[in-house]
Amino acid sequence: MTELLSDTGRKTMLAPLLEAGWTLDADRDAICKTYVFDDFTAAFAFMTRAALWAEKWNHHPEWTNSYRKVHVTLITHDVGGLSALDAKLARKMDQLLT
Amino acid sequence: MTELLSDTGRKTMLAPLLEAGWTLDADRDAICKTYVFDDFTAAFAFMTRAALWAEKWNHHPEWTNSYRKVHVTLITHDVGGLSALDAKLARKMDQLLT
Repeated sequence: MTELLSDTGRKTMLAPLLEAGWTLDADRDAICKTYVFDDFTAAFAFMTRAALWAEKWNHHPEWTNSYRKVHVTLITHDVGGLSALDAKLARKMDQLLT
Repeated sequence: MTELLSDTGRKTMLAPLLEAGWTLDADRDAICKTYVFDDFTAAFAFMTRAALWAEKWNHHPEWTNSYRKVHVTLITHDVGGLSALDAKLARKMDQLLT
């Protein structure tokens, strides 16, 4: 699972994420999204839920929180770019909002 | 409490923090510190404890987490620089480690 996404993987796994508000990082083979919540408690509650999944899957985000905003960057450091794990965690983060 | 730190305040409140590993931000009147933990669970546990104090005091950090590192920036946006609240939260964060 931890290999760089193939061209096919990018079409099947990445494309739906890019349609859902994720963007490609300008500098690295990574994806980013900024979530905006009602307040800090909502933002940190999201982070806490996502943290449990990240730890469960042993795949952790780089993320920045400033009051009600959470900016997430996903990359698989072991392979130096995007893997299926990033797509999986991105989908999970989006699902946590619904 | 939410006024810019005076010269006296900087000497009494800020100086001890700078000796404890906090640094002045290069671009803003803010203080920063990077905490390094054993792993993600320890890093996120620290963030969770700090988040509760931040919310209790209605004064929130800007912070970035990448696996076992947490980089914190403290500034009081209402006054555009450092206030006693920043010193208070910085001290609390340091205390959480002891």
